[in-house]
Amino acid sequence: MSVTTIAVIGGTGPQGRGLAYRLARAGHSIVLGSRDASRASAAAVELGHELEIGSVELRRVAGNVTGASNLDAAASAPVVLLAVPYDGHTELVSSLAAALAGKIVISCVNPLGFDKQGPFGLDVPAGSAAEEAASLAGGATVVGAFHHLSAPLLLDQDADLSHEDVLVCGDDREAKELVMGLAADVTGGRGVDAGRLRLARQLEPLTAVLISVNKRYKTRSGVSITGLTQASHERVPA
Amino acid sequence: MSVTTIAVIGGTGPQGRGLAYRLARAGHSIVLGSRDASRASAAAVELGHELEIGSVELRRVAGNVTGASNLDAAASAPVVLLAVPYDGHTELVSSLAAALAGKIVISCVNPLGFDKQGPFGLDVPAGSAAEEAASLAGGATVVGAFHHLSAPLLLDQDADLSHEDVLVCGDDREAKELVMGLAADVTGGRGVDAGRLRLARQLEPLTAVLISVNKRYKTRSGVSITGLTQASHERVPA
Repeated sequence: MSVTTIAVIGGTGPQGRGLAYRLARAGHSIVLGSRDASRASAAAVELGHELEIGSVELRRVAGNVTGASNLDAAASAPVVLLAVPYDGHTELVSSLAAALAGKIVISCVNPLGFDKQGPFGLDVPAGSAAEEAASLAGGATVVGAFHHLSAPLLLDQDADLSHEDVLVCGDDREAKELVMGLAADVTGGRGVDAGRLRLARQLEPLTAVLISVNKRYKTRSGVSITGLTQASHERVPA
Repeated sequence: MSVTTIAVIGGTGPQGRGLAYRLARAGHSIVLGSRDASRASAAAVELGHELEIGSVELRRVAGNVTGASNLDAAASAPVVLLAVPYDGHTELVSSLAAALAGKIVISCVNPLGFDKQGPFGLDVPAGSAAEEAASLAGGATVVGAFHHLSAPLLLDQDADLSHEDVLVCGDDREAKELVMGLAADVTGGRGVDAGRLRLARQLEPLTAVLISVNKRYKTRSGVSITGLTQASHERVPA
């Protein structure tokens, strides 16, 4: 694993904090972004404390965590994780577009709605939030991943996530490789190459099914792909 | 398990034959449907031979398999499985609507397109093929299931499918229970209550992701839901 700096846009929300925690534990340096830089800094301090609760070994390898405004966070890192609600996504990504140019942008955004029948996938004009980000931030290389991991489990230092598959979609092979590596860092398991970026249309709203399962079975569900015995590097070249 | 008669519309296609084989093995009586009744009868004879290749124990419990036109098949059974391509789905279900009234209709239809970028989910005016069937056959109770099982594995008598989860969606609890039982019959594993019928919008095109994974990893992939330690009957009442 090579260690990098990752900006987590929406880093004070549960999904952002959870992914930041796991990535920092794996040694990456994290810049938590928030609309309010002081909130981001407070969240960074809190996350730093949580890392210190871990074992001595963990504290030794953990990357540092700082906070900044979303824009400063995006500007400060070669890899930027969008972990924001879909509501406001268009405006946010537009405002960050210049800072995202030339970077790898990971979208775990799930455009979901809820009504009395439960959760459902929203209609997204671009097809998916990941494609919308790619369209708005034309200079960035967008990869979709981390849609299905439970935030409370990410933040539970004792939770073993190695059986969860992180489905990774994108059109750039190198960027996808990097994100699959980060997926392994987050879960201790594997990233799975799920195909082209447009398949984010399937990955994002699948979360509505998982939320529905969670409610019915009182659990925190996730996804595993059956039939994969090979390690990710044994994929057939695309 | 209670044994029933199941009509498989599109029963000469790979998915239909595969599901029919597993359901017959579990003791259900199968009526394979096809546009051409004589083709359906020939396929039924062939499937009967495949069942006879199995163990003595298997031959003893296997249900009988017959063939008929799609319309006669639909009219002959209390449970009707739609295992047809999405192309022509609207016309077919319309033509069967009267015969489907009062029945449980299971849709495993996957509306997919393919281009040089690979597979993708088609836009379906009703949201999903399952919802389209429910709309066209207003007197039927439609359940979505069996979207993600590999046809070659279904037809491979030695393939253990017990680790594959069958995601089942529908708005009628009793019908869903019945289909979850059939799912267990097919795989030897479990059906998972995936929520309301409209979530077929997520289940159907997820198959595009699995096909993409199959290509990249040279495998026959499927889906398993993590975080479910409870048996299906321990669900929280909806």
